[in-house]
Amino acid sequence: MDNSKVWKDCIGSISNLIEEADFEINTDSVEMKAMDPSHIALADFQLSSDAFEEYDVDKARKLGIDLDEMDKVVSRASNSDESIIEFTEEDNRLRLEFKGTSTRRFSLPLLELEEEELPEPDLNFTANAKITAGAIKEGLKDAALIGDNVRFELSQGKFLMRIESDTGSAEMELAEGDEDLEELSVEEPSQAMYNISYLEDMVKAAGSKDIVEIRHGKDLPIEFVFNLADGKGRLRFLLAPRVEAE
Amino acid sequence: MDNSKVWKDCIGSISNLIEEADFEINTDSVEMKAMDPSHIALADFQLSSDAFEEYDVDKARKLGIDLDEMDKVVSRASNSDESIIEFTEEDNRLRLEFKGTSTRRFSLPLLELEEEELPEPDLNFTANAKITAGAIKEGLKDAALIGDNVRFELSQGKFLMRIESDTGSAEMELAEGDEDLEELSVEEPSQAMYNISYLEDMVKAAGSKDIVEIRHGKDLPIEFVFNLADGKGRLRFLLAPRVEAE
Amino acid sequence: MDNSKVWKDCIGSISNLIEEADFEINTDSVEMKAMDPSHIALADFQLSSDAFEEYDVDKARKLGIDLDEMDKVVSRASNSDESIIEFTEEDNRLRLEFKGTSTRRFSLPLLELEEEELPEPDLNFTANAKITAGAIKEGLKDAALIGDNVRFELSQGKFLMRIESDTGSAEMELAEGDEDLEELSVEEPSQAMYNISYLEDMVKAAGSKDIVEIRHGKDLPIEFVFNLADGKGRLRFLLAPRVEAE
Repeated sequence: MDNSKVWKDCIGSISNLIEEADFEINTDSVEMKAMDPSHIALADFQLSSDAFEEYDVDKARKLGIDLDEMDKVVSRASNSDESIIEFTEEDNRLRLEFKGTSTRRFSLPLLELEEEELPEPDLNFTANAKITAGAIKEGLKDAALIGDNVRFELSQGKFLMRIESDTGSAEMELAEGDEDLEELSVEEPSQAMYNISYLEDMVKAAGSKDIVEIRHGKDLPIEFVFNLADGKGRLRFLLAPRVEAE
Repeated sequence: MDNSKVWKDCIGSISNLIEEADFEINTDSVEMKAMDPSHIALADFQLSSDAFEEYDVDKARKLGIDLDEMDKVVSRASNSDESIIEFTEEDNRLRLEFKGTSTRRFSLPLLELEEEELPEPDLNFTANAKITAGAIKEGLKDAALIGDNVRFELSQGKFLMRIESDTGSAEMELAEGDEDLEELSVEEPSQAMYNISYLEDMVKAAGSKDIVEIRHGKDLPIEFVFNLADGKGRLRFLLAPRVEAE
Repeated sequence: MDNSKVWKDCIGSISNLIEEADFEINTDSVEMKAMDPSHIALADFQLSSDAFEEYDVDKARKLGIDLDEMDKVVSRASNSDESIIEFTEEDNRLRLEFKGTSTRRFSLPLLELEEEELPEPDLNFTANAKITAGAIKEGLKDAALIGDNVRFELSQGKFLMRIESDTGSAEMELAEGDEDLEELSVEEPSQAMYNISYLEDMVKAAGSKDIVEIRHGKDLPIEFVFNLADGKGRLRFLLAPRVEAE
């Protein structure tokens, strides 16, 4: 496949939050779902076999991967080169190959991971927004000047990220018509507070103009969804809210 | 006002030297004058109300500002966006707003600062030069390789920054006709030595092609003046000389 | 001379490996040959007087130079400015001058260095390759993910850099026809292992498209040669192999 950028960005993003995970290599897709060590964030990755130029998996299997090591290796692939990523299982190692002006091959040991119980709560989101990743990133940088947690407030026609502390306050507002707000649909106003550093990791890999689909509800986890490879995949994050001190 | 770059650069520059200061918000200008904690450098900032697209101050007041915090916030304004900076006093906070592809608002607590006695000596400068900030910056980087203090020497037709120590020497010379020297007028040759790190802070915010107006005299403080907003303001620094070891 | 880039790059490269060295300023060339402190690498620099726009040396002499200090100073020369480097010996100092939009002068104290015994073994290289510095750099970055030493393997039609450890493996292959391989001539297959950090220092100053001439033989030191100033000089490195643990 020549979608090395998709891999680089997704692995880069996931590896900020999650150390190791099982990748399910199915006959028609690659999937991964895992939680961060403190069980605050869930990452859920799916990429259809259609996204690969060539995809040849005879039977489904699970590959336990150290995401930090994997990130270091896929980061070495060049976007400009036409590069190839091959997953082959052989003597319990993952093999990758990048073909450009030279041929580069890597192998990484596979891990034996314990099956993890993943909560997948049934969430009644009451609001939905499509926003540029750039606006979210700027809002997070603003908020990081003031403190550690930022409040999301979605209401009719208005998307707000707010933080207030003794050292000051910061607020990023998107109203209908603003360039960075592609869509906003609110059934019921909602607000909840989330950890800034986790949110930063979730949007880190996205380009400024990339669209994040946000789903939200009062005191619910927040969901960020990124479309991958022209709809042939998606990367979804779910982040638990912070309970506020009274 | 859409002169957010002026604010960003000035606050950025001043905050390197000075931690907190009173801004006088007058009906026709904003002014600030303060010394650094070790009383070696004086910063003096003036911006006319003409520099603002809209300026609405009913009565003069003083706002005590933590310049580091202020710098962090104004640094978040984007040069390319048409941005707005609003000063409003309300529940003892300073409020700022940047309008671009989103709307961002910040507030910072105001400080109660003690009135400071500011020396404003009557200095008989005997030389005057207009030099690109780039040339000064390069001269300072050269000098920083060798030691901590650099000597300025102004004489007829020649501007010199010199430093000499056991580890070597560095010298930057501008002679009449050199591209980086716009003007040089010397009544009487003068020289004196200044701390490199303070000088670096004073020119840090200036672009390479920006002009610094330098006023100098034998063993006097050195004065750097930057023109702001097409002459509608100015930022002036005064730096005490170092007494040389014999 | 206006070849300040040649000086900057060479001094930059050599100073990563070697702290101080005697430069022989001859009537028709400048030469330097020295080993790194642990005697693993040899650097050998030659630049003909033809490479200088003006070269005026009446009698040969040796100048003992602190390469770190020299590197800091020549790094201050600008590539874009037409700059001049002057070597003058006077009160036991080296003097340099850069002329651009200003005139900048530096002096550095000369060192009294002890004569060093330099091994110059007669090496029977059995393979020879011309490769872009970019490919070598990428191969080294890949290898550095896995460990400290990389194996070079040259065989008929194939150039390989390989590393393998418990944490994985990396391999960079250049085959005939690959854009990054300009020439490969192998009398006899050879392989040996070298320290990655030394190799990185040896190619650091080269541009990605610059050609490194590599000479190799079984368990021999590896030789990197860079052509300087259109053939009017050359920079040669010799790096001892690592003996492998059994």
